Parts: sequence; C-alpha cells; structure tokens
Amino acid sequence: MGAPRSDSARIEHDAFGPVEIPGERYWGAQTQRALGVFEIGEERFPACLIRAFGLQKMAAARANRRCGALPAALAEAIQAAAGELRDGRFDAHFPLTIWQTGSGTQTNMNANEVIANRANELLGQPLGSRSPVHPNDHVNASQSSNDSFPTVMHLATVLELEQRLKPALALLRDSLRERAEAFADVLKIARTHLMDAVPMTMGQSFDTFARQVGHGIDRIDATMPRLLSLPQGGTAAGTGLNAPPDFDVFFCEEVGALTGFGFSPNASKFEGMAAHDALVEVSGALNVLATSLQKIANDLRWLGSGPRCGLGELKIPDDGLTSSIMPGKRNPTIAEVLAQACMQAMGNHATITLANASGNFELNVAKPVLIANLLQSIRVLADASSVFARRLVQGIEVEPARLAANVENALLSVTALNPHLGYDQVARITALALEQRITPRAAALSLGVIDAATYDRIVDAGKLADPHARASRPDLRASSS
Amino acid sequence: MGAPRSDSARIEHDAFGPVEIPGERYWGAQTQRALGVFEIGEERFPACLIRAFGLQKMAAARANRRCGALPAALAEAIQAAAGELRDGRFDAHFPLTIWQTGSGTQTNMNANEVIANRANELLGQPLGSRSPVHPNDHVNASQSSNDSFPTVMHLATVLELEQRLKPALALLRDSLRERAEAFADVLKIARTHLMDAVPMTMGQSFDTFARQVGHGIDRIDATMPRLLSLPQGGTAAGTGLNAPPDFDVFFCEEVGALTGFGFSPNASKFEGMAAHDALVEVSGALNVLATSLQKIANDLRWLGSGPRCGLGELKIPDDGLTSSIMPGKRNPTIAEVLAQACMQAMGNHATITLANASGNFELNVAKPVLIANLLQSIRVLADASSVFARRLVQGIEVEPARLAANVENALLSVTALNPHLGYDQVARITALALEQRITPRAAALSLGVIDAATYDRIVDAGKLADPHARASRPDLRASSS
Amino acid sequence: MGAPRSDSARIEHDAFGPVEIPGERYWGAQTQRALGVFEIGEERFPACLIRAFGLQKMAAARANRRCGALPAALAEAIQAAAGELRDGRFDAHFPLTIWQTGSGTQTNMNANEVIANRANELLGQPLGSRSPVHPNDHVNASQSSNDSFPTVMHLATVLELEQRLKPALALLRDSLRERAEAFADVLKIARTHLMDAVPMTMGQSFDTFARQVGHGIDRIDATMPRLLSLPQGGTAAGTGLNAPPDFDVFFCEEVGALTGFGFSPNASKFEGMAAHDALVEVSGALNVLATSLQKIANDLRWLGSGPRCGLGELKIPDDGLTSSIMPGKRNPTIAEVLAQACMQAMGNHATITLANASGNFELNVAKPVLIANLLQSIRVLADASSVFARRLVQGIEVEPARLAANVENALLSVTALNPHLGYDQVARITALALEQRITPRAAALSLGVIDAATYDRIVDAGKLADPHARASRPDLRASSS
Amino acid sequence: MGAPRSDSARIEHDAFGPVEIPGERYWGAQTQRALGVFEIGEERFPACLIRAFGLQKMAAARANRRCGALPAALAEAIQAAAGELRDGRFDAHFPLTIWQTGSGTQTNMNANEVIANRANELLGQPLGSRSPVHPNDHVNASQSSNDSFPTVMHLATVLELEQRLKPALALLRDSLRERAEAFADVLKIARTHLMDAVPMTMGQSFDTFARQVGHGIDRIDATMPRLLSLPQGGTAAGTGLNAPPDFDVFFCEEVGALTGFGFSPNASKFEGMAAHDALVEVSGALNVLATSLQKIANDLRWLGSGPRCGLGELKIPDDGLTSSIMPGKRNPTIAEVLAQACMQAMGNHATITLANASGNFELNVAKPVLIANLLQSIRVLADASSVFARRLVQGIEVEPARLAANVENALLSVTALNPHLGYDQVARITALALEQRITPRAAALSLGVIDAATYDRIVDAGKLADPHARASRPDLRASSS
Repeated sequence: MGAPRSDSARIEHDAFGPVEIPGERYWGAQTQRALGVFEIGEERFPACLIRAFGLQKMAAARANRRCGALPAALAEAIQAAAGELRDGRFDAHFPLTIWQTGSGTQTNMNANEVIANRANELLGQPLGSRSPVHPNDHVNASQSSNDSFPTVMHLATVLELEQRLKPALALLRDSLRERAEAFADVLKIARTHLMDAVPMTMGQSFDTFARQVGHGIDRIDATMPRLLSLPQGGTAAGTGLNAPPDFDVFFCEEVGALTGFGFSPNASKFEGMAAHDALVEVSGALNVLATSLQKIANDLRWLGSGPRCGLGELKIPDDGLTSSIMPGKRNPTIAEVLAQACMQAMGNHATITLANASGNFELNVAKPVLIANLLQSIRVLADASSVFARRLVQGIEVEPARLAANVENALLSVTALNPHLGYDQVARITALALEQRITPRAAALSLGVIDAATYDRIVDAGKLADPHARASRPDLRASSS
Repeated sequence: MGAPRSDSARIEHDAFGPVEIPGERYWGAQTQRALGVFEIGEERFPACLIRAFGLQKMAAARANRRCGALPAALAEAIQAAAGELRDGRFDAHFPLTIWQTGSGTQTNMNANEVIANRANELLGQPLGSRSPVHPNDHVNASQSSNDSFPTVMHLATVLELEQRLKPALALLRDSLRERAEAFADVLKIARTHLMDAVPMTMGQSFDTFARQVGHGIDRIDATMPRLLSLPQGGTAAGTGLNAPPDFDVFFCEEVGALTGFGFSPNASKFEGMAAHDALVEVSGALNVLATSLQKIANDLRWLGSGPRCGLGELKIPDDGLTSSIMPGKRNPTIAEVLAQACMQAMGNHATITLANASGNFELNVAKPVLIANLLQSIRVLADASSVFARRLVQGIEVEPARLAANVENALLSVTALNPHLGYDQVARITALALEQRITPRAAALSLGVIDAATYDRIVDAGKLADPHARASRPDLRASSS
Repeated sequence: MGAPRSDSARIEHDAFGPVEIPGERYWGAQTQRALGVFEIGEERFPACLIRAFGLQKMAAARANRRCGALPAALAEAIQAAAGELRDGRFDAHFPLTIWQTGSGTQTNMNANEVIANRANELLGQPLGSRSPVHPNDHVNASQSSNDSFPTVMHLATVLELEQRLKPALALLRDSLRERAEAFADVLKIARTHLMDAVPMTMGQSFDTFARQVGHGIDRIDATMPRLLSLPQGGTAAGTGLNAPPDFDVFFCEEVGALTGFGFSPNASKFEGMAAHDALVEVSGALNVLATSLQKIANDLRWLGSGPRCGLGELKIPDDGLTSSIMPGKRNPTIAEVLAQACMQAMGNHATITLANASGNFELNVAKPVLIANLLQSIRVLADASSVFARRLVQGIEVEPARLAANVENALLSVTALNPHLGYDQVARITALALEQRITPRAAALSLGVIDAATYDRIVDAGKLADPHARASRPDLRASSS
Repeated sequence: MGAPRSDSARIEHDAFGPVEIPGERYWGAQTQRALGVFEIGEERFPACLIRAFGLQKMAAARANRRCGALPAALAEAIQAAAGELRDGRFDAHFPLTIWQTGSGTQTNMNANEVIANRANELLGQPLGSRSPVHPNDHVNASQSSNDSFPTVMHLATVLELEQRLKPALALLRDSLRERAEAFADVLKIARTHLMDAVPMTMGQSFDTFARQVGHGIDRIDATMPRLLSLPQGGTAAGTGLNAPPDFDVFFCEEVGALTGFGFSPNASKFEGMAAHDALVEVSGALNVLATSLQKIANDLRWLGSGPRCGLGELKIPDDGLTSSIMPGKRNPTIAEVLAQACMQAMGNHATITLANASGNFELNVAKPVLIANLLQSIRVLADASSVFARRLVQGIEVEPARLAANVENALLSVTALNPHLGYDQVARITALALEQRITPRAAALSLGVIDAATYDRIVDAGKLADPHARASRPDLRASSS
C-alpha cells in the first residue's frame, strides 16, 4: 500500500468543511486537519499500536454485524480493510505524532478514515467518497475514541507482552539457568558490601539471576486479570450510549477469537476510560524487572571487569567492537545497553505514573504519552534482554585461576568456626590474619585455638558454599516459571 | 521499660573493646559505637519495624530450639525478651536513625543486644553481662543481619499491609460504594477533556472510585506470593552457613503460627538477600493506588469547588477549620492531604526503585532507606485513606439544583441522535446551539430535522446515563474485593 | 547524499577483518559490525546530534591543523566532509539506534567512518579505501569517543536550547504578556484550594504565567557556565594522552567561531567524561519548566471548561477537531498536548538522573540514553510551547458575563472588612451569607455591623484586586527576561 | 518552655466555638481542632521550619509597626514571643504532622496561636485570652497563611542551605582536595567501561570528585536569585489585600537584618504563592548533587573493595563496626549511608516535582509535603556529606603495592604508540598480549614493530597520566568554589 497512486491532491469533506489531502494517502479530513495543528516532535506510535487498531476495528465490525448495527456488506468491507491495517499494510498512512489530544482521538479518526477509504475502494468507490462507508457512522459504529483508544492500548500491551517480552525473558531465564548448571561446581567468593565474604558457587549466582527473571515473568502474568479487561462498549464517557446491549461481550469474543487471549468486558466502562490503573500496574511490573535486569547486567560486567586490574572472574564474549582510541580494548557493551534500557523503563514509569495521576472525571487525557512510553519500555526491555541472552549470557565463561585464588584467600571462611569457637574468638583469628597479611588458616593455627585437621574439616569451601548439600540444581526445575 | 533504672553509665565490651553506655538503656556496644559514627538525620524506623524484629527473634529462638541449636533455658529467655520487644516495650531502646549501614546490621545488632540484655536480666544477670545469653552466639544464632534484616522487612510489610492498609482501603471502598448506592439515581453531566459530555449518574462516578480502590486491594494481594517468601536461613551471603538444615522451614512455621500468615522459605536465599524485587513490586502496587487515590481526591474537590463560582455539584463536609485571613472560608483540606500522601508514595517509589536497582552481588546495601520509604508509604496512604473515608466521603452530599441545571444544559445529549440522523447532521445541531446560545432541543427543532416527540423520547437523560438499564448497583456486589 | 549510487555491496576492513557494507552507504566496518550486534529498538538519535558531530569533527580538524597534528590536505578534506555532515547531508547514513555502548563509541565511529569515506571521495578515492584519510588516525586524531561524544552532547544541547527552546519560550512568554495587557482590567474571582476567594484581574493571572515562563528562561541561562565547558582534549580517560598540548583551547576557539557561543575547555577533562552533572542540571531546569507549563496548561483548560457546565471564564480557540462520537464537541487539545510533553520531560528527567548516578570511575557509560532523553525533552517542550503560544494563548478570549457574575457572587470579598470589623465579626457575615444563600453585602447589612455606604466603599472589587494601585503592567517590563 | 504548668485543660474559643486544650500547651483552638481532624502519620516539620516561623512573625511584627498596622505595645510583645519561637523554645508546641491542608494553614495558625498566647502571657494575661493580642488580627496582621507559609518555606530553605548544606559540602570538597594533593603522584590505572584503560594518578581521581562537589555548591548558589524572592505581602491570593502598601518591602528589610541574607519582595506575589518553581529548582540542584555524591561514594567503595578479592586500591578507615555473623568483617558503611541519602534526595525530588506540577489557580496546595521533602533532602545530604568527609575521606589511604602492580599490567598504555605506529598496528600488539597473557611491552617487542628503548620512552606511565605536565594541583586553586 506504500506505492503512490498519484501525485495529485484530492479534496475531502468532514463536518467542518473541505480539506486537501495528498492523493495517494488513505487518511482523511480530520487526520489532515490534525497534521496542521500538532506540529510537535517526531515520535510516532509504534507499528504494534497502529496494527492493534486494525484488530480492534475488525472485531468491532464483526460485533456490530452480530448486533445488527451494521449491514453485512459494509461490515465485511470494513473487516477486510481493517484486516489489512492489522497486517501492517497501512503503517505509512498514520502520519501523526504521539503529541496529540489526550484521548488519542486523532489516531482513532485516522484509523476510521483509512479503513473507510480502503473499504470504499474495495467497494469500488474513490478515496474520499465517505460513502457507502462513513468513518464515524460505520467504521466507528457503536464506538467512541474514548473507549476504542484505551481498548487498543490494552490490546497492544497484551500482544507485546505475550509475543515480544515474555519470550525474550524466557530465553534470558533459560540461558541463565543453563549457565547456572554449567557453573554448578565452580567455587567463587561471595561479596557483601562489595567486601569478601564466604565461599559460594558461580552456579548459585546464575541461579539467582534466573530466578529474578522468572519472577519477572510471574509479575507480568499477575497483571493480566486487569489488563485483559476492556472498556470497549463504553462509548461516550462510559455510558454505552449508542452501543447495542451486547456489543461489549461480542467484541471481546471476537477479539479473543482473533488473538487467542481471554479478553472480557470491564464491568465498569467508566473505570477503563477515566483511569489507566491497569497500565500503571503493568509499568510497575516492568519497573521491578528493570531493577532486576540492571542488577544482573551490573554484576556480570563487574565480574568480567579487567582483563588484568578488575575482578576478572568471568570472561564476557567479544563483540567485535573496540575503542576509537585504545586499540583492542574490549568492553561489556551489551551489558551497558541492557542497563540503559532499564533506566529508560524506570523513567518511562515515572511518566506513566504522572500520566495516570493527572486524570479528571470521565476521561484520562494523557493516553498517547502513557501508551507510547509503555510500549517503548516493553520493546526495549524485550530486545535488550534477547540480545543480552544470545550475545552475552550464552557465551560467558569463568576464569578458573582467578576464582580459585580468591576462594583460597577468603578470610571469612572462618565464619564456619563460629559454632565451635564462638563469635569473639573467631574475631581474633580474622584480626590477626588481616594484620599479618596471612591466611586465616595460618592465623587460626598460630593462635592455637584449633588444630589443623579440625580446621580443614570445618573450613571446607565446598561445604561452606552448600552446607546442606541441596545444590541449586533441583530447585531450578521447581521454579514457577 | 521506659523508666530509667539509674543515671550512671555502664561499660560493655564487644570484640573490639570497651564502650560506655547509659545505665538504663538495654542496647549494647555495637549500637553505642554506631551512634557515634552515624550522626545523620532524625528519621527513625517506625515502631512496626522494631516490633517485627521482636517477632523475628522470637520465631528464630523457637526454631533454634527445635533444631537443637539453642538450649531450652536460653531459648526461653530469648523468646520472652523478644516477645516484649514485639509488644512495644523497648521502642525507646532503638536510638539509631535509618541512616546506617546498607544491610541494616546496626539495627539487627541493636535488637540482638537489647534482647540479650533483657534475657540475661530475666535470668538474673546485670545489663552488659553478655552471659549466659550472648547477642551474636545466641540471640543471632543461625542468623546473620543479611538474612534477618530482609526477613524483618518482609514481616513488617506484610503486617502493615494486612493490618493497616487493607482495612483502611476496605473502609474507603465501602464508603464510596455506600455513596454510590445513595446517588444511584442522581443525574449529572459527564465531563471528558474537562468539557461537558453526556448525562450519567453520580452513583456511576462513586462506583468507579470504589472499583479503583477495590482493584487496589487486589493488586496488593497479587504481590503476596513473593512477599510471603522469606530469606531467613540464608545467613552469610545466602549459603545457609551455620544454620541447621531445617532452620528456614521451622522459622516460617513459627512466624506463621505467631502471625497467622502463610510465610514460606525462599527457595533461593541468595535472591531474597541480594535483591528486594518483591518489595519494589509492593511499592509498585502502592504507586498504582496513589494514582487512583489522587484522581479520586481531585475529582471530589473539583466537584465540590465553589461554593458559588466553581462546579458546585457536591457538598464536602465542613472540617471546622478555616483560612487565617478569609473568615469562614471552607476548604477541601482532607482531599488535599490525601493527594499529598499520594505524591509522597510516588516519590518514595522512586527512592525504592533506585535502592533496588543499585544492588551488587550477594547483598543489596540500600535496605534501610528502602524499607523506611516503603513503610512510610503504607502508613500515610492507610491513615489518609481512613480519614478521607470517615471525614469526607461518608459525609458528602450532592447539590441537586446545580446538577439538574447542568443536565438540562447538556449540549451533547444529542449524541443519542447519531444512529437516527447520522453524525454530520447532529454536528449541525450542536453548532447552531452553541452559536445561538440555545438549548440543543431548540436547535434541533429549529433545524427541522426531528420532531419534538421523537427528540424527547430519544434524548432522555436517564436513558442516556444507563442505556442498557443495567445500573451499577448489581455490579458492585460482583466486584472481587 | 540520500541517492543510492549502486546496489552492490563493498567490503571494508578494520582491525578485526573484512565486513560487507551496502555500496551506497558512507559508513564503515565498525558501524556495520555494530548494526549486527545491537538489534534493539527503533529510537535513533535526532538529527541535531548527528549534525553536532559534524560540527565537532570540523572544529577538531581545524584544531589539529593548528597544532600540526594533521597535514593541511587531510585537515581540509576532513573539514569539508564534516561540514557536509553538519549541514545535514548524511543524516541517512547513521543507521544505529541509541541502544549501543554506553560511551556512544559506535556513533562516534560512524561519524569517523562517514567523514573518512567522504573525505577520501573528495580526494578521489573510492568508499572504503581508509586512505589517505583513516577514520581513527585522522578523523579521530587527538580524540577518543570518550571525549568526543560528551563534547557533542554539550554542543547539541547548547544549540537546541539556544535555537529551539529559548525562542519558543520567549514567544510563549510574550504571548502571555500580551494577553495580560489585554486582560489587565478584567476582574475575576481568585481561587485558592479551588474555592472562591477574593477578586483579582485576569491580567494578573496571565502576568503570573508570563513570569513563570520568563524565569524558566533564566533557569536555562543559569546552567550555561557549566554547559559551555567542554571535555574535548581528554582523549583516553581524561588524561589527554595523544592530544597536542593546546588542542583543547584551539578546539573551543574553533567551535566558538563556528557557532557564536562561548565554549571553553573543562579544567578537568576527567570531570566532563566521568560524569554529566552539567546535563542533569539542564534537565533539572527543564523539569522546573515542565511543572510551570503543566500548571499553566491546566489553569487555562480549567478556566475554559464548559461550555455550559464548567468554569467557563475563558474561550479557548477552536482547533477544527472534534470527538469521534459527540459531534461538535470542542476540546482543549493543545493544552493537553503541552501537559503530556511536560509529563514526558519529567519522566525523562528521572532517566537522566539515573543515567548520571550510575557512573563508575573514569567514564559514565549511560551517555546515549542520557542525551537522547535530554534532547527529546528540549524538542517536545519547545514545539509544544510554540504551538500552545500560537494556537491557544494568542487566540484566547474572556467570557465577560460569567466573570462578572462570579465577582458579584464573591463571598470572601468581605475579607476587606477585617481591619474594620475584626476577623471574628467578619466570620459571622460569611456564615450568614452561606447559610441563607444571600450575598455577603446583604448578610453584612442584615447583621447591622456596617452601613451600606461604608460597605460599598471598602468592598470594591477593583480595589481588592489591586489594593495598592500598582497594576501588573509596569512590573512586566521590569522582569529579567 | 517544655515544662508543664498544670495538668488541667483550658477552654479556648475561636470563630467556631469552644475547644478544650491541654493546660500547659501554648497552641490554641484551630490547632486543637486540626489535631482531631488530621490523624495521619508521624512526620513532623523539622525544627528549622518551626523556628523560621518565629523569624517570619518577628519580621512581620516589625514591619507592621513601621507601617502603623500594629500599636507599639502589641508589636513588641509579638516580636518578643516570636523571638522565643525562633530560638527554639516552643518546638514542642507544634503537635501537628505535615499531613494537613495543602496551604500549611494549620501550622501558620499554630504559630499565630502560640505567639498570641505567649505575647498575652508576657502582657500579664492567661493563656487562651485572645486579648490584647489576637492570633489573626495581630500576629497574622497584614498576612495570610497563603503568603506566610511560602515565605517561611523560602526562609527555612535559605538558612538550611547556607548554614547546614554549604558548610558540609565545603568540608567535603576540601577534604577531597587534601587527599588529591596527598595522592598527586600516586599512579593508578584508569577504568572506562569498568575495563582497564591507561595510567592516571589517584590525585586526578580525587580532584575530579572535589570539582564535582565544588560545582554542586555553585549550583546551589545559582538558585539564590529566585529563592531570595519572597511572596510575603500577597495576603489573600496574591492581591495584597489588607496589607499596607510597603509592608512587603519593610518585611524583607527586617528579615534581611535578622538573618544577613539579601531577601527581596517577589514582584508578583501571585507567582510566589501559586507555584513553587524556585523550590523545585533548588531540589533540582540537590538532585544533581545526589548523582555526584552517589558516584563518589560508589567509586570509593569499589576502589576499597576486598580486602583480598576486590580492587583493593584504597584503604577505607575502619569504623569499629562489623558483621553480626562474619567476625571482623569491615564494610564501607559510611559510603553506603551517603549513597542511601542520595537515593532519598532523588526520590524526594520526584515528590517535590509532582507537588509543584499539581498546582491550580492562585494557590499551590501541596506546600507541606513539598517543603518537608526539600528540608529532609538538605538535612540528610548535609549530615551524610559531613560524616563522609570526616570519617571516610579524611582517613582514606592508598594501597601502593596493588596500584603499582595494576599500572605495570596496564595493557592499553600502548595507546601512547598510536601516533607512532598507527591504530591498526597497535591493535596487533594488544591482541597478542591478550592471547599470550604477556605484557604489552613483550608483545610489542615480539612483533618487532618497535625497539625497547623507544617503547620505554613513549610508554611511560607517569607521562601518560599527565602528558602535558600540567598536574591537577594548580587547577585546584583556580576552581570557582
């Protein structure tokens, strides 16, 4: 549909008079007027939102037909045109930026106009004819922008979460788990307050990361009951004026059939139009995820820091890129990207929170900025997680020599002596070891508080890392996601 | 316990030497040292956290006894002393501010020292004796600060959510519902984009608010699976070093018995100590709630604005307070308080997010600031919701004359004519009514597009507000919370 | 430069081997490798940043020539090519998204490669020849990504603030001032706590808005001392390794000559590379501005609410757009856009703050996300302010009848009686007026506490609005901006 | 004043009737009523705000006397009582939490009532007499809460910035500078992307930190022009109703004389009451500072990590505290506190931003939450900076052996060879060194691209760290703050 038909402009009319529109474009008068009004920024809605409008208008046409609110011929033409929109054939016919009316009315009208023009074309009429298919009376039948736009917000969010983010997170979780298995027996030093603590395994570290990501998926799932609830059918202000009685139910059945997800009508259409609590909730789940992923990205780049003057316990795969001045310098670029994606999601969460808190009465009018930020968060967290899994996690390796030396040096392994010697006695051992820069074993023996055989039996790094011999592997399978 | 025993100081010793402590205070050497180090701010942990430490040490003593890690006599003395802490008898013996080590170690040691001193006292020893009950070896047995402090963070959060916030929200939801019932038949004008839209009922407005609060409770409940999961048993860094094999299970059984909530051991202690994703998730639920409550508070104060030059559709109960310069001026003070509480919770959410995102390796070291902010959010949202319910919502009344005049004036009631006349025709009616400042009915008749009887049958405010005659009342009972 | 030369790919080599590149593209091997690595998101740097790279490489080539670090022939070719980049001829040759290494190295290399290719082309060599002009050795001479990228961040920010945002704000301030003059004698009711207070003028309201915007400009100016300070010359980590001694001074002279702004070398290059405090400071100024503009946008849409059931004191110009279901409904769309732009800037501020707080050691590695958010904030605040000024503020009109009725009704005008009757006596007047729904004048006379003539002399709305007869107009001219 | 006079309650009257008040308390009827209304939270205003109210009422009494708005006897009694409030003698007589009306009216009335009672007592009348000094008519003369509270917000902020935060920051900056001097010749390895880069000095690191803090002071100073501008004199809504013509000028003169700071009347009182842009600006400066301090705290704790398995380049002074389970473990506790203080300030900034963005019309009604958050940020940043300077920075030492070994190992020192060998050739050296785990010198010689003498002359760590021999010391003195 991107191919221009003609260079000449056409004239369309709406309730306010005539407007000139580029000949090859499918949008209509209200879109063209809006283009002249909102000369702001460059940010456009992502394709997933535009296509979700195709889905919404398709389902609405089917529901209208079932309700008798649209004749079959018109319903079918609308459905066919909307299907093309859903499939991405009209992405280039949505010229407005996100900086528009707070209800998203202009983009809803853009969808109505594109579909009306295309449906009329399918029915043999020229663009701009507004007949037999009228953008408001037929494409928008039983709907308003005020219920359609928030419905599309939910549709696009569900689809992006299910089809983009959750698969990426599952890949990341599984990649982390696979490394946890591979490193199950690799001893390392734990660090608390950044300071050397007791021995543990590298497998336990990666298992922890995998669990955080797994819980991240659970948290997304926990938002679904409220996210699958749609305000379609509320029309003007939430009353349902001009929508047939069962339109909301039929709509959810149709959109469910088209997508496979269990959408249902919001029992209060008012709630779904006046407030977007359900979307702030989703953003909150992404915000938790962002804190998890930033921590994971940071831990990996710290453990891989060096190559010679850092912690150097992990080898991060080479990405083929380097410094513009320091030849051959290798950097944990992908961890940095993931961390930046997380910062974006956390800031977007602030915008989304503000957008929802600012609502008044029957309509929240910060819908475009809210949904644009939410869909961006989903997209960048998904893409960055996927690249991070494939290009960094899956190829990560340990540095055995550094790890072993650190475990050997681990001063606080003597914590295992607490039950035998008491806390105050053990404190003397560590103080001596630090002061004389000797191993804790040498300090303990020098103080004469324990014999070598007992020391070696108790202060065994392998036992310390897993004192109850319930290594992390079985737990991995028990995890909920 | 607040009564001073003596003015004289005593000397306590810890692993680092002697420290002078005020004679009547139950804290010990590490607390006293910390007081000298952290001379920062005035913010103290709320009593609920201090008391949750009593609960945690009680449950730990019981679990230690079951494991055989503590002799019965010591376990009982510790349990008795910890019980007094839980009951609030030692609130004044926690002198540190929240501005301390990121692990909360100083407050854990404060609890260990207070309980050890009190337990020794119960066993006939003077304060500072460190025997037979030692703060580290016995009160802290099978524990570290690194697992105890985050366990207490979860305990205090669960108790505050269940015992303070959820009851306050239930009260608010029920108060809003009661008003929804009372106003079920009161017609009002809906407003979208702040502009007059179509008629609806005041009951629908309050029902929407009640639903938002009800979903807020649901969102808190949705965080519980991860919040009830405790890291106790992780000891040093998450390994479980020095904790008996079943200590974590026994601990959760005991704390469950003491509280009635279904706590369970976190399958990865590492996860519960290195990151506080579960608490960011809770804060996210509070953040959604804050956006809901801010919207509700704002809607009510706007609808009550006036008394003569505002919207004036609601009468907000008088609070007995007034302006210092404008005598008799009445303001919606309680709505303003609630809005401010929401702003605090949203900002605290940013702090909590930052605190969790900043973690490294095996220990998040922003625990004190994280939990202090979270408990503050819970407290102020709960208290403000409760006062808002009792002093504002329950006493709110409608202004029938203003409401009726507005409905009468409602230009866009003619939207109901769309299916009959088509969108473009109806647009002519509103344009004429606006231009000539006449009612839409007069405009419609003047244009000759419809007869009076048909107009009156279709444009009926009661029907517009509830076109499918499924008033909001039955739905109220079906709501999940 | 957008025109494709050929469809065939070429092979370029870098230090790591051969890479295939689309024949008509000017980028080189490192850019192409990066494209394969960072498959994340769709957000690209705005043209202003790409073009600022042209400016930076131009100035660097000139400075290198002055230092003798580049032969004249190469310096001139580089300068010519960089000039084309600055002028926008290579916008389409920067294919990477912002989701890349935290140092922005890939975009710096992209600039180096495009300029090298173009310079070699100007010197008669084919694309990909890397000779005589080498992307690292010559285009990047005396530079690293670590000093060039943050220098470009500063350059783009200064240019966007000076050339885009400040003119838009000046237009808005002046438009508000013009309306303040026009409404200087229009009485209105002040509202505190949303409740009716004492009389004032509409001119005072608009003057307040104009001052807020004026201060917003002042706040941007206050950040300039630190923003004009550039880290160029720091090369690797801030040391200045491989940069000639006066390179930093010459660079600032050249970039100053090219732009007209007073740039100077940062006395500590380390500071300008390791941290972006200066940019967080700018974002902080935008954040204040966002709160101002959101307040202004909200006040105007509230005062324009109605047309019949709202406050209705202002008439907001019609934008030619309407509802998709309520024909003829007019909404304050542009105020909503401005408010949404403000929410975006506030959320971006959170991202920018996080990005800066996350730095470690000698290099902040959240540069791309930081600068992308900052430039977006500047752009949308500027565009939205400009549209708001031109399409809303300049056409706004008052509704005299509503304003006059409100002033007439103003209960608390009796505050003027405080000095005469005392606070407690005046409180009786307002209580009676409220109770009996009469005017305050009638209540005062009915209580017999004052005679009609005295009442009318003291309670004069015009005097109340400007008791010291120093109307807002003279002050307008005294404002600093 | 804290000593109770009597246990018996007294009855006070206000315009709404009688109220019972504890006999020894100086507050009055409106305060007592408010206590019953606002049962929310525990957060009280800090003493600095309560005392600033004393200052404000003192200056107002003096200005009123100069204007003839108060008789000398009353003015003097009020001034004396207000002076006692300023000096901290009535801190315990402000029982309300910050959770009150958004204008802060209750705390202004609390101040009016305490001062009236105390002034009457000084004049020989019992508490509660309301005569000869009336809380509204005399203490609040020429004022409203709406101008007094925001004036106090500015006063307390200026005093806290000047007397608490700036001295603490100056101490921190100077402590960092002193360490920069001490470490001026200590070579270390720079780290970019956390990866080993080229040599620099530890002095350069500390100099960078000192500069960041110095700029932080500059940023606070940059906010002063707008912060010193006071709304006092605006009275009701900003109009100045009931205030004598020069009251605002006299007030600023008096408060200037009492404090030594150059306060001046806001040319638009409306601006200073309706919006708190100036305070959001201050918070923005604190937000930048928080990002600087968090970076500094993190860098120091990372460089001090270990003692054996971390970076270990710095020795952080021991604080005498340790782990509850790992005996003798030493942690960088004070760096963690500072980082947490920064997180609090960043979150508070979000609250403050929200509070200001939410304003409507003539009065921002989120004043209490805004100022409480701002004063908390100032306090905790100041205290934490001071403790950090005194207990951590001043005692920090380097670990020479580790530093030297790292510099020796520094692979990318060969960057210095770029101008001699070209980037691509140098890349071969680093690749070989990495692959064979040899020093870069060995790799360079093995490749035969350079002779040993030339290598040693060029790749000299001392030269690399300061190639232009303009070591950081002289610059330190040139710094603006």
